[in-house]
Amino acid sequence: MKVKCKRKDLLEAISIVERAVAVKSTMNILEGIYVEAKDSSLQFLSNNLELGLDCTIDAQVEKEGAVVIKANLFSNAVKKLPDFEEDAYIEVNENEVINLSCGNAKFDFSTAKADEFPKLTIVEGEKTFKIKESVLKSMIRQTIYAIAQTDIKPQLSGIYFDISGSEFKMVGCDGYRLAIRKEAVENNEDIKFILPGKTAKELLSIIGESDYEIEVMLTNKNAQLNLKNCKMVTRLIEGEYLDYTSVCKHKNTLVITTETKKILDSIDRAALIVNETTKAHVVLKIEDDNVYINCETVMGKVKDKFSVDMQGEPIEIAFNPRYLMDAFKNCDCSDIKFSFSTPVNPTTIEPAEGDNFLYIVLPVRMR
Amino acid sequence: MKVKCKRKDLLEAISIVERAVAVKSTMNILEGIYVEAKDSSLQFLSNNLELGLDCTIDAQVEKEGAVVIKANLFSNAVKKLPDFEEDAYIEVNENEVINLSCGNAKFDFSTAKADEFPKLTIVEGEKTFKIKESVLKSMIRQTIYAIAQTDIKPQLSGIYFDISGSEFKMVGCDGYRLAIRKEAVENNEDIKFILPGKTAKELLSIIGESDYEIEVMLTNKNAQLNLKNCKMVTRLIEGEYLDYTSVCKHKNTLVITTETKKILDSIDRAALIVNETTKAHVVLKIEDDNVYINCETVMGKVKDKFSVDMQGEPIEIAFNPRYLMDAFKNCDCSDIKFSFSTPVNPTTIEPAEGDNFLYIVLPVRMR
Repeated sequence: MKVKCKRKDLLEAISIVERAVAVKSTMNILEGIYVEAKDSSLQFLSNNLELGLDCTIDAQVEKEGAVVIKANLFSNAVKKLPDFEEDAYIEVNENEVINLSCGNAKFDFSTAKADEFPKLTIVEGEKTFKIKESVLKSMIRQTIYAIAQTDIKPQLSGIYFDISGSEFKMVGCDGYRLAIRKEAVENNEDIKFILPGKTAKELLSIIGESDYEIEVMLTNKNAQLNLKNCKMVTRLIEGEYLDYTSVCKHKNTLVITTETKKILDSIDRAALIVNETTKAHVVLKIEDDNVYINCETVMGKVKDKFSVDMQGEPIEIAFNPRYLMDAFKNCDCSDIKFSFSTPVNPTTIEPAEGDNFLYIVLPVRMR
Repeated sequence: MKVKCKRKDLLEAISIVERAVAVKSTMNILEGIYVEAKDSSLQFLSNNLELGLDCTIDAQVEKEGAVVIKANLFSNAVKKLPDFEEDAYIEVNENEVINLSCGNAKFDFSTAKADEFPKLTIVEGEKTFKIKESVLKSMIRQTIYAIAQTDIKPQLSGIYFDISGSEFKMVGCDGYRLAIRKEAVENNEDIKFILPGKTAKELLSIIGESDYEIEVMLTNKNAQLNLKNCKMVTRLIEGEYLDYTSVCKHKNTLVITTETKKILDSIDRAALIVNETTKAHVVLKIEDDNVYINCETVMGKVKDKFSVDMQGEPIEIAFNPRYLMDAFKNCDCSDIKFSFSTPVNPTTIEPAEGDNFLYIVLPVRMR
């Protein structure tokens, strides 16, 4: 292999693909990045068997070829190349040593054989849809906070994509809280799948806020996302997602409207004396257009109150403050509607205007 | 105790004194902050027996008194007070519970008895000097990087202050490298002491860049620094500091002048393949107005070169790259003079213009 490319392109490609490099794998080769020079391009591939990334850049290829490089070392070397130089040169010699040079800086690293590297599964799109990267980013961000952090119920460790007719819903749920984010789409077919949480997290880092239309192609087991700068292939989580539509069917007896920051700051203050050891809850007493917040643990007592617009019956209800704070932090709007039924029924949080999200939080039983 | 004070003053005072609170002490009381309301002020004290801080703010005192509060809890509560409120109220009731309130937010925490708290040693200034906080900050920053990180030789874990006549030198040294920072002062007496590294580190965080004149008062064992916002009392390190003036007496055979960033970036690239396991060194070959950098380890090879202004004989010399990088990072000037004698003698780094610092780095013997 012998190629010349732009240092900036190389830096961008490596910074993206290194995200899907296996950290500690029984297959050593997965800790590397596959590099192939062909025609007039240089391809970089990473694959941790859950998620794979493919980033291809323009290059002047003098000699074609493919090797697997040590991801960490090569990536650090590329990041440290002199930033005033425009071109980078990559050459693999007969001893399978890769030489990376840029200006006067030259690096030599050993490589591994390219044919041992597991290529990405090509997804022959049985079902496809398109979505703007800015919309995908916002939808993931507003649901990922609610997914389960463990694999005890594998389906809940992912984000559920539910497209039916012209409505696209994304759902995150860990059994104690649930987040639904809605958008209108133009799509002819129903599409439902569960994207692994780790993939969703990497997507958040890779995709931008532009209007670029991402194409998503699906089989039962895998999805391929054609992003602006790279292709992503990911395993999907198999199995049925829970029937989230039936979670919150009861009738509200109270709706309050409040500034998101005001209620978030108040809960945050009360949560100061709640930790893993105290395992306490925060009590909200809502009456006479006021929310009274109370928390008492071995660490101390916190009281707070603020005024709200209140429609309905007074209530006294307790929460795990972390669940409330996570929800409020991900509202992305200045005012919210917070609805209650009984002290043991799920509560809902929605934007004061519009309906692009619905967050459901289970209260805790008061002692 | 019953007082009213400005929320902002309270926040600033707590943020400063919490720095000297003991983290895990056999004396529980040291994990707290001593608070005393007297006359028209509110005093906060922390003391980890090495370092103590005393911060006093204006307050309307309705009832005098003193307690010890839990540092962590109280500090977090103060940080979370509503930022649109101006005043904060502190009251200790008959059950020795402290109530902190600000707007509608109210916190109750238990306290400990004030008389168990060890007050700070008052330093009756046998010797004193004054220094601008901006100068003190710069001098500490340019020497602290070179001090020893262990207590094997306790003197080397501190910064040596050496004032004789009109010259003020600050010295950091760990046995492998040495940093001397000079300033002119007006002082009548010779003053020499060793400030603990931890104290120097806290000073860096607390003091600003202004022309405020800090007064330093000294005994053999302690120093008191009257800073802009607080008083600091610190233990000094006892014993003799090494005779640093004799470290670099040999004659230079080569002096190069180079951009600091250029040589730092080159060494940084070479250091990429040097780690705890490889324990390799970086070789500099200086000839024909060029510096050739070479490094070879099991991880790979790095080569680099750049042109310099060179006066004297060629040399080939090896270094631990970390020592060179630490020195270059703390030069605070765009160009430096780097001087050599033989491949085994100490080398010196100075500003290209002026002489306000002198860094000495020992080379390593080439394999």
